[in-house]
Amino acid sequence: MTKAIFLIQSPDSKGILASVTGFFSQRSFNILHCQQHTDSFEKRFFMRIELDVADMQTTRKELEDDFGKMADELGLEWSCHWSDYKTRIAILVSKEGHCLYDILARQLEGELNAEIPLIISNHPDLERAANQFRIPFYFFPITEGKEEQENRIRALLKRFDIDLVILARYMQILTSDFIEEWRGKIINIHHAFLPAFQGANPYKRAYERGVKMIGATAHYASEDLDQGPIIEQDVIRVNHELTPKGLKEVGKDCEKRVLASAVKAHLEHRVIIYKNRTIVFAVER
Amino acid sequence: MTKAIFLIQSPDSKGILASVTGFFSQRSFNILHCQQHTDSFEKRFFMRIELDVADMQTTRKELEDDFGKMADELGLEWSCHWSDYKTRIAILVSKEGHCLYDILARQLEGELNAEIPLIISNHPDLERAANQFRIPFYFFPITEGKEEQENRIRALLKRFDIDLVILARYMQILTSDFIEEWRGKIINIHHAFLPAFQGANPYKRAYERGVKMIGATAHYASEDLDQGPIIEQDVIRVNHELTPKGLKEVGKDCEKRVLASAVKAHLEHRVIIYKNRTIVFAVER
Amino acid sequence: MTKAIFLIQSPDSKGILASVTGFFSQRSFNILHCQQHTDSFEKRFFMRIELDVADMQTTRKELEDDFGKMADELGLEWSCHWSDYKTRIAILVSKEGHCLYDILARQLEGELNAEIPLIISNHPDLERAANQFRIPFYFFPITEGKEEQENRIRALLKRFDIDLVILARYMQILTSDFIEEWRGKIINIHHAFLPAFQGANPYKRAYERGVKMIGATAHYASEDLDQGPIIEQDVIRVNHELTPKGLKEVGKDCEKRVLASAVKAHLEHRVIIYKNRTIVFAVER
Amino acid sequence: MTKAIFLIQSPDSKGILASVTGFFSQRSFNILHCQQHTDSFEKRFFMRIELDVADMQTTRKELEDDFGKMADELGLEWSCHWSDYKTRIAILVSKEGHCLYDILARQLEGELNAEIPLIISNHPDLERAANQFRIPFYFFPITEGKEEQENRIRALLKRFDIDLVILARYMQILTSDFIEEWRGKIINIHHAFLPAFQGANPYKRAYERGVKMIGATAHYASEDLDQGPIIEQDVIRVNHELTPKGLKEVGKDCEKRVLASAVKAHLEHRVIIYKNRTIVFAVER
Repeated sequence: MTKAIFLIQSPDSKGILASVTGFFSQRSFNILHCQQHTDSFEKRFFMRIELDVADMQTTRKELEDDFGKMADELGLEWSCHWSDYKTRIAILVSKEGHCLYDILARQLEGELNAEIPLIISNHPDLERAANQFRIPFYFFPITEGKEEQENRIRALLKRFDIDLVILARYMQILTSDFIEEWRGKIINIHHAFLPAFQGANPYKRAYERGVKMIGATAHYASEDLDQGPIIEQDVIRVNHELTPKGLKEVGKDCEKRVLASAVKAHLEHRVIIYKNRTIVFAVER
Repeated sequence: MTKAIFLIQSPDSKGILASVTGFFSQRSFNILHCQQHTDSFEKRFFMRIELDVADMQTTRKELEDDFGKMADELGLEWSCHWSDYKTRIAILVSKEGHCLYDILARQLEGELNAEIPLIISNHPDLERAANQFRIPFYFFPITEGKEEQENRIRALLKRFDIDLVILARYMQILTSDFIEEWRGKIINIHHAFLPAFQGANPYKRAYERGVKMIGATAHYASEDLDQGPIIEQDVIRVNHELTPKGLKEVGKDCEKRVLASAVKAHLEHRVIIYKNRTIVFAVER
Repeated sequence: MTKAIFLIQSPDSKGILASVTGFFSQRSFNILHCQQHTDSFEKRFFMRIELDVADMQTTRKELEDDFGKMADELGLEWSCHWSDYKTRIAILVSKEGHCLYDILARQLEGELNAEIPLIISNHPDLERAANQFRIPFYFFPITEGKEEQENRIRALLKRFDIDLVILARYMQILTSDFIEEWRGKIINIHHAFLPAFQGANPYKRAYERGVKMIGATAHYASEDLDQGPIIEQDVIRVNHELTPKGLKEVGKDCEKRVLASAVKAHLEHRVIIYKNRTIVFAVER
Repeated sequence: MTKAIFLIQSPDSKGILASVTGFFSQRSFNILHCQQHTDSFEKRFFMRIELDVADMQTTRKELEDDFGKMADELGLEWSCHWSDYKTRIAILVSKEGHCLYDILARQLEGELNAEIPLIISNHPDLERAANQFRIPFYFFPITEGKEEQENRIRALLKRFDIDLVILARYMQILTSDFIEEWRGKIINIHHAFLPAFQGANPYKRAYERGVKMIGATAHYASEDLDQGPIIEQDVIRVNHELTPKGLKEVGKDCEKRVLASAVKAHLEHRVIIYKNRTIVFAVER
């Protein structure tokens, strides 16, 4: 079943919900899901609405144009997504392969509504994984100059019509220009329960602090390292028997499932960003 | 802020959402929250809508009557609740006090939108707890005859205008008549992760089966023991170091928080029952 | 560092711990870890001891023989394992690939102290995965006759010197003969939180029962289906928004990590079976 | 059954385990539990041993003296505890009652091997709770001068022979002198998942950062605020629907069980402190 998904946000005011549902009802759409959230602290309205478009009477463009007119009158920010479009993902990696393998296997098994046309790395180690899954692998070492290396990446992303960049344990900081250009379209996995242990070596610092749980955080990349809007987090209970190396090994499972969960939410158009926070709608499966 | 909460269910059909939101929008209500869920497996529509009633132009009765007319036309089952009414709770206990203490402390601390006018038990042990919190305690031993004992309980529930009965580790099976009369208004806590370990001695059986997690389940009481609609469940990780007695002790924490969570969902009118399942809406706090 | 690991169990009696630690201390071994558990309910003693064998003064056989003599005197059941031996695993699968991919990626990444010389299936679907990881794939359809099919599997396991069989969503029941021959050496993943939902279609039944968490269980295979000793379990919180199909999808993550965790515990010689329960020692990493 | 518990730590060296178990074996003690952990990162040995002292042939003092001699030779730090002694606890609170009620109910229900002879507060609000449980309540407002107020507290702790101080949401910083005098004997509950959100208003900051889980941390108090050795942590999943006030309410459950778990570990002599970390042994119940 093909679906259209509208993500909407605006300052809170009376009647938005009725206007939006009325808009689709008058056009005889079957509303599959409608989720609305009013943040009483921020005085802000958020909404996700999912439509069956089987009997749509207009073109997609006409629908979007009509909705756009109403949105302008009501002062809504919005985006529209069509479920028969496969998001095109580029995965950036360094040496650690666990997150990469996890995403590749999920894609092959049909869990992700996406294509993965390329993998990019600053190290040659994971070419093997790319070959196993028959995905082109681009090796751009940092030794060629940080700026030059990043430019080559950005050029590739354009050439391949990429929609979403996943930093699957890519151990390089991106420039502000890159972040700016791809805002809301880069998902990073950090191997700690943010805001604890921002920056390098979180497992070693977790050991030294003696925490009893370690975690992982998937977030949209922002100019400030490890401070972008969080999409998903999870933790694993640990104890004194784990050395920094043991924490790192145990943490891999947490990283994999947090990243996968965040990527799914993004691909299913369930995430709205406002300020430095995300609204992540849960939906029927 | 006083609120009205409508819980609605019906066979799925187009336009219900728009009709309901339109109904309140036309009457200038501010819709605080609206949650809608369509179960594609059961072809059933569920909805919870929460309204600010500060500027209501009609009486409560008029509003309910008007809504009732529309509901009849659309074929909706529904109920309406007002947030300035405190639900009246009777707690039934036997000998174990941990769930009782937990609920009493939460009520005193203002966590529950409820009054607790009485505690009833088939054992005298917990009179102390009732006295500490200055709540009348009724001791009805089973020795006086099961039917007679239950009749005395049912009479008390009526006399005290009780809305909700909590079985806080009440170790007696209720008769079908009692269940029938109070359907959807009795919450029981079972000390296992249902449907595992229905019936007696779940912790001993959990030990023997060698499970690695134990749990607790809060559900509405039904004629079939431990088979009513589940409201909330949770688990705790255990290992080989726990004897049946140890499992029981560790499980208490799980029982307390599962029961409290289910009671809150009920008191906040977030639960709809359909067949043997519950829809539990999460809402802003 | 090469290590020897002894797993020991016996009826509880005074002095076993001192005798065993004394045995290794007299021979100047460095005891890396020693874990002892006395089950006061079963009156049974369990122990795991891990030794640095760098400076061992005898052959491995002599050490085992000497220990065997003491064990006979004390009435101990025991086994000895050497960390430089890689356990040889056969994976049996049907059509679902998520657990298979997860294990193969972990093995390749060095997480498992094991070799995987072959994959066997009753369906051809997962040959692709086997090829990606360059592991021989044997397709034995049930259509050739259940007994004949199983005999071919058992012959292969011998030919390949297999130590451990993993049923990674292998949807066939093994015969008692097979189970008997491989007791304690077959790990199965069941897609439910046992003992809830034994048998077929657990996710559909979980939906119908309306549970609020779903789980997975890894256990040693036994004659009685889904009733063998449990090694590991975990759960994921779900809600009314998941259909049976959604539960199945969400459950995959739980299955993967529970199976991986159980396999690791087995490979690291941290599991002792007694009656229908397991003692799973946690150790430093 | 009366038990003696020895907690031991030392630099790692061969033979300590055999010496200690031999010591008790020669004296015909029944070793109920023995747990040993060697931290390979810190090169440090930790041990907890639990003895049945029913048939002890010497006085307690003689046993401790004998053990002390061996400990001196081996260079061990150690402490010895007797299970028939009830630890004497003072609880310090401010205005929030949830942790206080939780501990008081547990003590009354027999979960804690402890006495609670007094409650101290810098606010009068919780006198009611103290009265309900018939425990003397001391109200020392800060307005009388911070130093003077603390001196009165410290005098009371001495007068009542207090062994352990629980800061159950006591919203005052203790002086270095107080901390120094009571090192390892003050347990604080912090309403965040440390080291995230140290300091004031963690729930508001958690909201602003948009975390997807909130937590609580129980730790021994140290000179540096919220930086002492962590005993226990736990988290609860949250989402965008919770305001700062909602996070605070939801977090209470987490605080209660984390504090209770840490207090139990301390009372059962299962915690060893080394540097800024704790070793928390799990034991049979």
